[in-house]
Amino acid sequence: MAGSSFGKIITLTTFGESHGEAIGGILDGFPGNFPIDISAVQQQLDRRKPGQSKITTQRKEEDQLEILSGIFEGKTTGAPIAFIIKNKDARSKDYSHLETAFRPSHADFTYHRKYGHYDYRGGGRSSARETAVRVAAGAFCQQFLSSKGIEISAFVDQVGIIRTYTVSSDQAEIDISPVRCPDPEAAKKMQSLIEDTKKKGDTVGGAIKCIITGIPAGLGEPVFDKLSAALAQAVFSINAVKGFEIGSGFGSVEMNGSVHNDLFNTDGTTKTNNSGGIQGGISNGMPVVFRTAFKPVATLLQKQPSINKSGEEILLEGKGRHDPCVVPRAVPIVEGMAALVIADFYLQWKAYQ
Amino acid sequence: MAGSSFGKIITLTTFGESHGEAIGGILDGFPGNFPIDISAVQQQLDRRKPGQSKITTQRKEEDQLEILSGIFEGKTTGAPIAFIIKNKDARSKDYSHLETAFRPSHADFTYHRKYGHYDYRGGGRSSARETAVRVAAGAFCQQFLSSKGIEISAFVDQVGIIRTYTVSSDQAEIDISPVRCPDPEAAKKMQSLIEDTKKKGDTVGGAIKCIITGIPAGLGEPVFDKLSAALAQAVFSINAVKGFEIGSGFGSVEMNGSVHNDLFNTDGTTKTNNSGGIQGGISNGMPVVFRTAFKPVATLLQKQPSINKSGEEILLEGKGRHDPCVVPRAVPIVEGMAALVIADFYLQWKAYQ
Amino acid sequence: MAGSSFGKIITLTTFGESHGEAIGGILDGFPGNFPIDISAVQQQLDRRKPGQSKITTQRKEEDQLEILSGIFEGKTTGAPIAFIIKNKDARSKDYSHLETAFRPSHADFTYHRKYGHYDYRGGGRSSARETAVRVAAGAFCQQFLSSKGIEISAFVDQVGIIRTYTVSSDQAEIDISPVRCPDPEAAKKMQSLIEDTKKKGDTVGGAIKCIITGIPAGLGEPVFDKLSAALAQAVFSINAVKGFEIGSGFGSVEMNGSVHNDLFNTDGTTKTNNSGGIQGGISNGMPVVFRTAFKPVATLLQKQPSINKSGEEILLEGKGRHDPCVVPRAVPIVEGMAALVIADFYLQWKAYQ
Amino acid sequence: MAGSSFGKIITLTTFGESHGEAIGGILDGFPGNFPIDISAVQQQLDRRKPGQSKITTQRKEEDQLEILSGIFEGKTTGAPIAFIIKNKDARSKDYSHLETAFRPSHADFTYHRKYGHYDYRGGGRSSARETAVRVAAGAFCQQFLSSKGIEISAFVDQVGIIRTYTVSSDQAEIDISPVRCPDPEAAKKMQSLIEDTKKKGDTVGGAIKCIITGIPAGLGEPVFDKLSAALAQAVFSINAVKGFEIGSGFGSVEMNGSVHNDLFNTDGTTKTNNSGGIQGGISNGMPVVFRTAFKPVATLLQKQPSINKSGEEILLEGKGRHDPCVVPRAVPIVEGMAALVIADFYLQWKAYQ
Repeated sequence: MAGSSFGKIITLTTFGESHGEAIGGILDGFPGNFPIDISAVQQQLDRRKPGQSKITTQRKEEDQLEILSGIFEGKTTGAPIAFIIKNKDARSKDYSHLETAFRPSHADFTYHRKYGHYDYRGGGRSSARETAVRVAAGAFCQQFLSSKGIEISAFVDQVGIIRTYTVSSDQAEIDISPVRCPDPEAAKKMQSLIEDTKKKGDTVGGAIKCIITGIPAGLGEPVFDKLSAALAQAVFSINAVKGFEIGSGFGSVEMNGSVHNDLFNTDGTTKTNNSGGIQGGISNGMPVVFRTAFKPVATLLQKQPSINKSGEEILLEGKGRHDPCVVPRAVPIVEGMAALVIADFYLQWKAYQ
Repeated sequence: MAGSSFGKIITLTTFGESHGEAIGGILDGFPGNFPIDISAVQQQLDRRKPGQSKITTQRKEEDQLEILSGIFEGKTTGAPIAFIIKNKDARSKDYSHLETAFRPSHADFTYHRKYGHYDYRGGGRSSARETAVRVAAGAFCQQFLSSKGIEISAFVDQVGIIRTYTVSSDQAEIDISPVRCPDPEAAKKMQSLIEDTKKKGDTVGGAIKCIITGIPAGLGEPVFDKLSAALAQAVFSINAVKGFEIGSGFGSVEMNGSVHNDLFNTDGTTKTNNSGGIQGGISNGMPVVFRTAFKPVATLLQKQPSINKSGEEILLEGKGRHDPCVVPRAVPIVEGMAALVIADFYLQWKAYQ
Repeated sequence: MAGSSFGKIITLTTFGESHGEAIGGILDGFPGNFPIDISAVQQQLDRRKPGQSKITTQRKEEDQLEILSGIFEGKTTGAPIAFIIKNKDARSKDYSHLETAFRPSHADFTYHRKYGHYDYRGGGRSSARETAVRVAAGAFCQQFLSSKGIEISAFVDQVGIIRTYTVSSDQAEIDISPVRCPDPEAAKKMQSLIEDTKKKGDTVGGAIKCIITGIPAGLGEPVFDKLSAALAQAVFSINAVKGFEIGSGFGSVEMNGSVHNDLFNTDGTTKTNNSGGIQGGISNGMPVVFRTAFKPVATLLQKQPSINKSGEEILLEGKGRHDPCVVPRAVPIVEGMAALVIADFYLQWKAYQ
Repeated sequence: MAGSSFGKIITLTTFGESHGEAIGGILDGFPGNFPIDISAVQQQLDRRKPGQSKITTQRKEEDQLEILSGIFEGKTTGAPIAFIIKNKDARSKDYSHLETAFRPSHADFTYHRKYGHYDYRGGGRSSARETAVRVAAGAFCQQFLSSKGIEISAFVDQVGIIRTYTVSSDQAEIDISPVRCPDPEAAKKMQSLIEDTKKKGDTVGGAIKCIITGIPAGLGEPVFDKLSAALAQAVFSINAVKGFEIGSGFGSVEMNGSVHNDLFNTDGTTKTNNSGGIQGGISNGMPVVFRTAFKPVATLLQKQPSINKSGEEILLEGKGRHDPCVVPRAVPIVEGMAALVIADFYLQWKAYQ
């Protein structure tokens, strides 16, 4: 399996299966001589970890970050930063029934076809647990970007049919509700929808919005490495993502150019931001705003017909402990992937300054 | 400007400005000893070229493909295939007024900030003319993929508020209308909407759907190089794209898992295709289906307030000849980018067979 | 620090400092469903580890391999294979005197200029200890290549002025002497030269020859990714390497074409192998043969004048435990890097078969 | 055929066969807003072109550079710089006899095995003519590096058994002799050796030394992307190269550390430069010095036994016009590849300043 590395100047390479020894990553190309706050990295991991509230899975994973290299006397050395998160509370037996079964809309079938042999326990390499590594690496990048005045903040924009038009980049405000929606009204509705859905043994989809402020004009490369294209790939590499839009997004389809165009102020800022902070693939200095669709979790706590490796019909019953809706825990993952992209493009931009 | 290369095993590197000597590209890693039908490549270029109908720009560009290397006695040699398309009918004077002006929602401002010095004529490097190179390279890949039973077909799914639910992968059926929508009823409405919009000197957005059939299960790499993520980047690198979704896309946000999951038939196919042919980032053998949002063209044939390089307010009047809606001509571009991705992943997959 | 990844389809990403928590790597893109013999990997590590004989450093490092992912029930899964080697017996105090000193012909000075802040203990990231990770990853690749009939074998060809013209690809024969030279006579002389040099607190250079058999014709890409160029980069990325030559190498400078040309047998093999198995950057099916020069170890167990970070003259005395000559332990490192290259090119080649 | 791209931030992608329409390249990532002297680029091309003197082939190629993009009003725009060199005076008939023959120590056999179908005329893609593209791209980079105080200069160090110990970085001094050796005595001997060799219808090898001055300390990445490793790959990607060494090179094998170590002056420079300006893979501010071995040209103007595609023995007679020794014309090629590497690493370094 290739494709476990991401980035051009700052690269993250990840490893690990849900029920193996550990998951982890190597963050290479991170600037040296930079003072790192490990507790802040751990805090982002804690925002992603299971068992935070009754609307998330009750799996108790500590997700304790262990640094193996690249940091000396509290500062980065410029050497690759390697870190691992040991797997604990791995009830493999919960998954023994999956040795031969294909779960609908999971990766069991495609892994079987691609690799023949794979670690089926808890999804193995295809488990969303892998995203913890992205959160940790992204948190390192967020600290670097903050030192340059660039802040990245995501929140839950929609759960099922309940959406909000409130926008926030204040983490305290966002985290006040376990749903991570900054609109208290909507948050309450989302929470009860998730709880009801869980009671039915069902799951529901959601959407996350991300806002990046302080980006200087000039980040992103025209043609194939547009900043928008890099963000699209980064976010689409997160499990369960089905859609991605920037600025006006799909709404732009129904608009006229006379309404959609972002008119300039004399200082070069724009009166509107339908462009979502990116024009011709290059940041224009306005906030970068994008939105992502997450499908409902595929693992249901109800009976589902499926097939096994022999192509026989079977009846599956969801076991293990799973989220009824991924978006509350996906917020730091989206932030992490965005941070990896922006930090990488920031350094690419610096090379020409 | 970096970022003019795309792909891992099969790579396309492009060059050229709208009003320079020529545009072109180098397609490297294309399989050798493969008989190429150049006229079929030219035909795809003709589907993109301006002046095809009264709903597209009246610029007359011949977009004549010239092969410089990589093909010998009618077959590819495995050497890089280089080709150019000379720029003709380049009325630079149409653009002289842009030497100092920033057009709203164009790349003028970001290029100015990033490069200081750039070819402003007709958008220079940021012009959509660059996409002709992608169409040509994609057409080479489409021929290779066809020889493996993989077919890629895109069509216009929506213009403004008019959309269709008709699906087609038959090019003749799609091209019967200049709008490239396979639903005759919708096509007629789309066409008149575009014509009315043009009369007003305005523009309108649109959406394109793409269907890829015959992909074997197993294409795509887990984690960062998911097939879905690669397609997202590829399509988002096309000018004017604001959104991308696969399978159920943004619709999945409002769905429950019990409805969204694709149940298996005993042969491994699925009864529904909300996954859009990709599970865990890997193709599952079902058709890959994605949809893309294009914003309304930024160049309006009406007066617009803007600013110049000195930050003074100016009044812009759209000159030159422009499309009121890009989607009819964007169809082969979407096909081309999809073909580059699938061909590249096909060879990556072959390496492990 | 970027540049910790190597390879295109099979990639190795490494991390770790000499006196940090651990060193390790992620081997991504390794074929799945392949039965791995971990003990054979450990055996290659043991060939590199210090303290093997009295002609190598007396540091006792166990270099115990720990697999964290990618192997399930004794076979690779296709997922990234992550492994670590914990650092033990790290007498950091041996190096405290280096906090401010620059050792001649070491990386202290360049790291100081490049990173400002770095882990100086035992060379930190620049320590040859990092190469253990390459040996482990290379050993995985050697097992894969063996299954395809490709064998890689290196041996000591020269130490100081003592060289051999004996060639061998039999590991037992090579390892019979601690010098790893298959010529018993030369080996004895090399060993006493190393011992004498050590007594003087001095060090001496050496050369390693590597022979790769069973490579099919067709590996390697013309132009920039010639197989010869990839091997040159791979081997030159090993600490202390000063020279690399393929086939006739520097000897070809003094030859005439009429003597140098490799004439064909009717089966396509050649009567001579001055090409070293590579023509036009592509393997021709003959054994690939290359030779590498290693400079004498820079750390001397005698007094040397040097400077410190303040640019003041100091007198350095080599501490710690060091090799008087690196080549005996470098043999598996050269094999490892060659294996990473050949395995990567083998899969690139397979993509087009 | 992949592998036609080189570099990470500044990338060169090349195309073209010896007797096709044209050869050329795309130089992407070159800094924008930089005033370019095209005539100086053409001058480097003229240093490589055939027919310069009676010791080089009499083929008359004009090697006229045509710029297609990336330069506007005399300055680079940051967009990819595309250029072509049309093929003229292509006497294909000279090569018709090669349609089925394999020339000893040429790439005919390996291309046949790898691609099945290829352009055999004059070596097609494997022809050294491809290197003209590297010279042009390198000349662009040399202008950029000069503006940073970095100068690259190569010269002929050895032809056959005749070598020089004279060192020069003054192009006028180097070019005063057609051999491009700055030592007039040696140059005269080399010239007559080449002429005598030519008379016999034979060829002879040679070596080129390259000196790079003004490089700041800190260029190069530890581990795999050492500056030395990148130069090794770059130079080994040139046709006919059999060996590469940096600083003391293969001579270091016979040296003791007490002699080899480069002792520091208090300003951080070193009293000797056995390191060749690179320590731990990173430039130390001293001149970078490397030496390259070129084998004798494989095409002989005398009869040679060989085989054809059917494996039958044939008698080959060298036709076409060829160099008896490549090094005089290879000087600008070596400079070009070195310039591509240094410019790329310079920008990578800038990203962290």
